[in-house]
Amino acid sequence: MKTLRVDLGERSYPIFVGNGVLSLAGRLLSRSGCSAPPIIITNPKIMKLHGRELLRSLETHFGPTPVISIGDGERFKNHATLLKVYDGLFRWKADRHSWILAFGGGVVGDVAGFAAATFMRGIRFAVAPTTLLAQVDSSIGGKVGINVRQGKNLIGAFHQPAAVISDVALLRTLSEREFSAGLYEVIKCGAIRSKALLRYIDGGLRDIHSRKAGALQHIVSEACRIKAQIIVEDEKEDHLRMVLNYGHTVGHALEAATNYRLFRHGEAVAWGMIAAMGFGRELGIMTASEAQFLEALIHRTGKLPRLGPVSFPKLWQALSRDKKIRAGRLHMVLLPRLGATEIRDDVTPQHLKQYLNKFVSKYR
Amino acid sequence: MKTLRVDLGERSYPIFVGNGVLSLAGRLLSRSGCSAPPIIITNPKIMKLHGRELLRSLETHFGPTPVISIGDGERFKNHATLLKVYDGLFRWKADRHSWILAFGGGVVGDVAGFAAATFMRGIRFAVAPTTLLAQVDSSIGGKVGINVRQGKNLIGAFHQPAAVISDVALLRTLSEREFSAGLYEVIKCGAIRSKALLRYIDGGLRDIHSRKAGALQHIVSEACRIKAQIIVEDEKEDHLRMVLNYGHTVGHALEAATNYRLFRHGEAVAWGMIAAMGFGRELGIMTASEAQFLEALIHRTGKLPRLGPVSFPKLWQALSRDKKIRAGRLHMVLLPRLGATEIRDDVTPQHLKQYLNKFVSKYR
Repeated sequence: MKTLRVDLGERSYPIFVGNGVLSLAGRLLSRSGCSAPPIIITNPKIMKLHGRELLRSLETHFGPTPVISIGDGERFKNHATLLKVYDGLFRWKADRHSWILAFGGGVVGDVAGFAAATFMRGIRFAVAPTTLLAQVDSSIGGKVGINVRQGKNLIGAFHQPAAVISDVALLRTLSEREFSAGLYEVIKCGAIRSKALLRYIDGGLRDIHSRKAGALQHIVSEACRIKAQIIVEDEKEDHLRMVLNYGHTVGHALEAATNYRLFRHGEAVAWGMIAAMGFGRELGIMTASEAQFLEALIHRTGKLPRLGPVSFPKLWQALSRDKKIRAGRLHMVLLPRLGATEIRDDVTPQHLKQYLNKFVSKYR
Repeated sequence: MKTLRVDLGERSYPIFVGNGVLSLAGRLLSRSGCSAPPIIITNPKIMKLHGRELLRSLETHFGPTPVISIGDGERFKNHATLLKVYDGLFRWKADRHSWILAFGGGVVGDVAGFAAATFMRGIRFAVAPTTLLAQVDSSIGGKVGINVRQGKNLIGAFHQPAAVISDVALLRTLSEREFSAGLYEVIKCGAIRSKALLRYIDGGLRDIHSRKAGALQHIVSEACRIKAQIIVEDEKEDHLRMVLNYGHTVGHALEAATNYRLFRHGEAVAWGMIAAMGFGRELGIMTASEAQFLEALIHRTGKLPRLGPVSFPKLWQALSRDKKIRAGRLHMVLLPRLGATEIRDDVTPQHLKQYLNKFVSKYR
């Protein structure tokens, strides 16, 4: 097991990464300060796959452990689900000293974390993420929230977890597509901060795809280390944390323009990275060989849905609404070289529009 | 005008207290970092009474200023109103850089503040409180939230305002009862931290009740100073901030036991202080003459509804559910002398129950 630490002063917390660490959940939560059974928030699918193992560990440590189950899937990340979680917390007589344990993917983590952020003005929560995307991305950094009809994640809070328990053994039950989708976020971490991680993935893709424990622990812990480091330097995304959004400006817009149906989030980010690299090349800030290496790695990682169904006007409309675009000026994260970032705020919407039109045609 | 500062590091903010300061709102918000029109959240009654003055100042500084109006009264402090506020924010195209200005009493401040805490993971908000209770209590300290059917303020957050603009001239339009209800919270501030403030109120009650500007500015700024000082030492109510809840353990229970209909919050707190003092006397921790002085001052301050309609079993039931009561142990704030507090955690529920039974009978 590898233990990382997100160093945020009094809001610091450990990330435990390893093969089989779910069976240590009780001990790890105890060690993090939890002294009574946490209230598990999860969905029926996850509970069926991995619930017994978690409950065994928690009940050994804490006794009977309550479970609140919510719907599975992004469409349940809404106010109705949040109210259901609050009701569950009241039913289980949660008070200001209760802990929540979010056990699932990004949706469970975001909803459970937002419930924790707002229940009695904030209670502690831990996360046991069950997807690769959640292990390397959404479980770390304290961004929690829900979607509203006006857009995704528009209501939320920053609420740091008290512990993250990432069992890479759980990743074995992910479908090929879901696994690859998470892997693109790992590649993103490498792209912005670690050429070594990119090289590791390049060389170890077969081990990674066959879900070998050592390879999984390495990529998850490296991605977590990179994300944690960036968050420590910029908790509330004033500037630096933007680099974590590499590939996300276009990625989010691709998701929105296709009603969140064509792409998984990681896939959209993968296309977003390819778009950002190409745009960077136009601005002359990346070498051709590095761009080719990264694009080839992305394509080897999994089968990306082509951009055929993407309507360019819809894409552009979605992009113009992005909450990261401010007063007509675009902030774009670009890579001057692999493992390094540059935030450009001199990108004109016109230039980007022109480029993206070509980009969408190229990958139809 | 008097300017106080709540010193919370990067979350520090000024409190402007004075006669007519509402007409300086534009300038004061500018000075606090607001650079575009804030979105006002208020209710129709307040808007009619004082809206023109506020809008004149804001529109001079910032241009057209949007207004979101919510229902007037505690029953609107709920999820439905919160969703209405979110919708209004989206309609006015609020983004992460927008400011909210909560213009009203405690309900407006709590709902608007919670919307600010959660809209796009937190935007800035300022408060222009319009009741005495809001000026001396709810607008300061960052406690924001809504009620749910399980209880008051059970969903919420800590989100500090960026500025508080307390115009004591607005207090002239309050009813006698509402004004007195706020005054009890000022007395509470004196009781826990400043015998001088209690003496000032004792000597100046006539000037205060006739709403003389100088007297109002003095009591509001003193109460704010005391509250701010306590919050600075203990932002999240781990221990010290509990002293602000002097009179609240019994006060909240009195409100709940009478379905929030018989007492205004301040009135319930006034009875709670009388109860706490009596209980303190039983424990022998306050002199008879100080207790008599404070109780007499409370009674001279306004006409408290008698306890006749309070059912003791209901009161006790409400008290047992209080979120500040933990694992069967009561934490009670008591006064060893006027202006000083002691937190007792050795109070047995049995003893308190016995005492309160007598207390309710005495004041029927």
